[in-house]
Amino acid sequence: MRVQIQSRLAYDFAQPTETIAAVLAAHAPGQIVESETLTLSDGVRMAESRDPVSGARLLRGSLAGRVSLDYRAVVRIGPRLPLPPEVQVAPWSALPVEVLPYLLPSRYCPVDQFLRFAAREFGSIQPGGARALAILDWLHTNLDYVHGVSTATTGAAGTFIDRAGVCRDFTHLGLTLCRASGIPARAVAAYALALDPPDFHAVFEVFLDGGWWLVDPTRLAPIEGMVRIAHGRDAADIAFLTTAGDVMQTEMNVGVVRLDSPKLATATVQPLVKASHNPNTVEEAA
Amino acid sequence: MRVQIQSRLAYDFAQPTETIAAVLAAHAPGQIVESETLTLSDGVRMAESRDPVSGARLLRGSLAGRVSLDYRAVVRIGPRLPLPPEVQVAPWSALPVEVLPYLLPSRYCPVDQFLRFAAREFGSIQPGGARALAILDWLHTNLDYVHGVSTATTGAAGTFIDRAGVCRDFTHLGLTLCRASGIPARAVAAYALALDPPDFHAVFEVFLDGGWWLVDPTRLAPIEGMVRIAHGRDAADIAFLTTAGDVMQTEMNVGVVRLDSPKLATATVQPLVKASHNPNTVEEAA
Amino acid sequence: MRVQIQSRLAYDFAQPTETIAAVLAAHAPGQIVESETLTLSDGVRMAESRDPVSGARLLRGSLAGRVSLDYRAVVRIGPRLPLPPEVQVAPWSALPVEVLPYLLPSRYCPVDQFLRFAAREFGSIQPGGARALAILDWLHTNLDYVHGVSTATTGAAGTFIDRAGVCRDFTHLGLTLCRASGIPARAVAAYALALDPPDFHAVFEVFLDGGWWLVDPTRLAPIEGMVRIAHGRDAADIAFLTTAGDVMQTEMNVGVVRLDSPKLATATVQPLVKASHNPNTVEEAA
Amino acid sequence: MRVQIQSRLAYDFAQPTETIAAVLAAHAPGQIVESETLTLSDGVRMAESRDPVSGARLLRGSLAGRVSLDYRAVVRIGPRLPLPPEVQVAPWSALPVEVLPYLLPSRYCPVDQFLRFAAREFGSIQPGGARALAILDWLHTNLDYVHGVSTATTGAAGTFIDRAGVCRDFTHLGLTLCRASGIPARAVAAYALALDPPDFHAVFEVFLDGGWWLVDPTRLAPIEGMVRIAHGRDAADIAFLTTAGDVMQTEMNVGVVRLDSPKLATATVQPLVKASHNPNTVEEAA
Repeated sequence: MRVQIQSRLAYDFAQPTETIAAVLAAHAPGQIVESETLTLSDGVRMAESRDPVSGARLLRGSLAGRVSLDYRAVVRIGPRLPLPPEVQVAPWSALPVEVLPYLLPSRYCPVDQFLRFAAREFGSIQPGGARALAILDWLHTNLDYVHGVSTATTGAAGTFIDRAGVCRDFTHLGLTLCRASGIPARAVAAYALALDPPDFHAVFEVFLDGGWWLVDPTRLAPIEGMVRIAHGRDAADIAFLTTAGDVMQTEMNVGVVRLDSPKLATATVQPLVKASHNPNTVEEAA
Repeated sequence: MRVQIQSRLAYDFAQPTETIAAVLAAHAPGQIVESETLTLSDGVRMAESRDPVSGARLLRGSLAGRVSLDYRAVVRIGPRLPLPPEVQVAPWSALPVEVLPYLLPSRYCPVDQFLRFAAREFGSIQPGGARALAILDWLHTNLDYVHGVSTATTGAAGTFIDRAGVCRDFTHLGLTLCRASGIPARAVAAYALALDPPDFHAVFEVFLDGGWWLVDPTRLAPIEGMVRIAHGRDAADIAFLTTAGDVMQTEMNVGVVRLDSPKLATATVQPLVKASHNPNTVEEAA
Repeated sequence: MRVQIQSRLAYDFAQPTETIAAVLAAHAPGQIVESETLTLSDGVRMAESRDPVSGARLLRGSLAGRVSLDYRAVVRIGPRLPLPPEVQVAPWSALPVEVLPYLLPSRYCPVDQFLRFAAREFGSIQPGGARALAILDWLHTNLDYVHGVSTATTGAAGTFIDRAGVCRDFTHLGLTLCRASGIPARAVAAYALALDPPDFHAVFEVFLDGGWWLVDPTRLAPIEGMVRIAHGRDAADIAFLTTAGDVMQTEMNVGVVRLDSPKLATATVQPLVKASHNPNTVEEAA
Repeated sequence: MRVQIQSRLAYDFAQPTETIAAVLAAHAPGQIVESETLTLSDGVRMAESRDPVSGARLLRGSLAGRVSLDYRAVVRIGPRLPLPPEVQVAPWSALPVEVLPYLLPSRYCPVDQFLRFAAREFGSIQPGGARALAILDWLHTNLDYVHGVSTATTGAAGTFIDRAGVCRDFTHLGLTLCRASGIPARAVAAYALALDPPDFHAVFEVFLDGGWWLVDPTRLAPIEGMVRIAHGRDAADIAFLTTAGDVMQTEMNVGVVRLDSPKLATATVQPLVKASHNPNTVEEAA
């Protein structure tokens, strides 16, 4: 699938402020950035660097005054298979070392506090895909998608009590319950086709049968239409803007459009790799 | 300096439990493991893997029943310089990408909640070494080293209110205040010479002038005598034992002895590298 | 029903410490203290005062060194009816003014945080007895009675996440869910017949159809065999010992025995008053 | 001093909602309501009841649709003396029973969590007025008066970390530190002369030398010009509007004007009672 993504962010910085922006499409398995343009407002300089582990491309700089970032790209997304119930969780000793942190608690995911609940609620379900799907069902049944309930400091414990939140909150509670159930899970920031209203989206991935499987706990956008920006332990790692001080957002605009027709896409994209080991790949049939 | 370290841990696992143990001396800059032995109780198998980024060597396995780990090693530690006030903090755009996560909030370090306090208390102090030293002074003045106040779920916010805790708590609040003040900071698990009573120690490092500087916020042990085990965002990443379920600790014993005489050590260890860029190095004069 | 209650508490006070003990059977509707003795260790003086609102009798004093309190009493308990589903909750404007605080959040009962969950889970159930019974069923299904999970600072939010605790925790979550569902609810400290092992018990009361109905959210002891000590908003108000500083408990022993035979009791105790307006009364037929 | 107070509140209730409004001047020692008018919008009925303990006069009703409350009153306020350093705190056994709850933790005042900090920071200061004044100085030095930092769920622990808030937050932290230091303290809602911009004000009282002494931890308004509405353990008890469900505030307007000239007032108001025992009295010389 080919999609055109665009975002516009504008801010007012009262004083020079160290800033990281994560808005560029990642150079990551599962997607190819065919073309892109980044336009910063006059006089603004940001350095781009690519995280060698995640493929995220961060923009960094000390920003002051009125600043805008305009980003446009055409991205080809490889096929993504929905999480199957039969994929297995590996014993810890068989996990790649770099996956281990995604079993641990993080700022918004106090996994240690949810071990009892996870065992009570999901402990009897086959570990692996079936259990992750049960957690997604639980989130769907027990959380309401509502703006204005959560704030930037709300974590999974707050959302578990509130029973409401936005994509970030669904993702935090999903990450927490998966990790507390023994399933490695990491947060993903993405552009999402068909998200209404359009916005940066927070979803997550679980590591099963040797690959990362993308899921959307809000069920608001199809995983096939997501363009990955960054991944990390939780929203702290994947925020589209991280600053060392206060800043006023004056504008934010996100758009995603599909460029190829749905029918055509189905016909031409043929995954060659074994889905269970690299489910989110971009390799296609010639 | 050469030290002999040893630890003995014993546990009772009611059922087979996925486990990670971080007790081996790291293969990291600043120290050389000259010799070591690891003895697991009969029938226990754990796989060793080295984290390519941190040099930490993790033992992983599914453990059941009564299990003990005995570890002994002789480690040569390179010289470590105390943090000087004049070292500088780099702008974010000049930081290595892998340092960025150590500016962010983590499970026990809710940096986002401490931005105001950090600005109020330390904002007027020269960023860099001087500010980090001011934070260490603040911890020394405002926290009491007391067992039994904190638990495994206590984070920096709790310690800030309690004004008391153990090495882990001092470290969490130190990490939080440094990050909230713009100084990258990461937690370090170590064996520590002269710690009384002997125990696994939690300390931290700040990234200034291009290098990581080790500090002990409890001021209970000299940084020169520490053998690094692992580093990470906070205690969640560097626990000496992480398990997927409940476990009963039945024994824990740590010991560290210096093998060379202090005078001799001073004579033979000559750092060759520029301290401000790689302060904790093991390279020595021939 | 006539029961004999006894408790023995012993403490070691490192320095003179202001103390309130709530161990005496209350002079409250629903029970008559037929005889009692209180023995304090040598040299200890505590003043008794009766709270005119609750009937609780508090012992107060500045205690130092080793102190013991021995209390024994024979108490006649009036009949108590189980909460019927059909009792109604009054509109706020019809509630006695002194009942209003029991609708509000308190230290361990953050009612404001549970409004959404309460509405989601219990909002469709008839307000009044039916809804309170649904809350009790929810607690029974979703909480495990386990020692060692909660501490003295655990509130209803922690218990909601942990899904486990002791009588105090069940009571806090029950109080919180009732108040968040519009039902006035207050905590009650009691001696409880048939509690195994014997201990001070924390239960609660809901205000419906103009009277307070006693319920035991742990279902560990029959409400008919409870001797009331004090009531209040939550455990902060009804602790058996409140001190201005640290104290070491060296002994604690509670016992409750039934004096009359069950059959006899049924024969002689005849409630005359309308249960729905004063359900926990001690008035009996002559 | 004679002041004219007025408030106008307007709300939009999506559905009939149980509501308590606390806007009327209390019938309490220290002030006399000379005249007053309350105007509710058409069709709205609220019952007034007076809390026999606090003298607060609550309006209660089930409100629906657009509702406004307009209140105007002329109130004569007795003299209030500033808290003197030499007033003493009584031993717990000498406190009136009804004062005891004001030593305990409440929803927004987790006193139990602040015992260590209070002892560390204020333990060496003479208990009583001197210590309460030291707490007020600490608040003044360590907190910034800033809108937008706190929310309706923020308690003293949050404010202690944020180091910023509004009158309610200053009051919660003040109450918490006083109680944790052994000084009974209760929250007071008031109309305040000279508060800019005019608003409902939250202040507090400490119980020393047998009387309640009013203090304003924000130092934004003189205690002499305050008209008491209600008191309680914290903001949960004294909110100007408490509802059983969501409601939209559409208007809020508060005004306080002094009717007599400052000079005249000084001449005619002569407190007859001993200030140390009933500091906030309205009794005047004939």
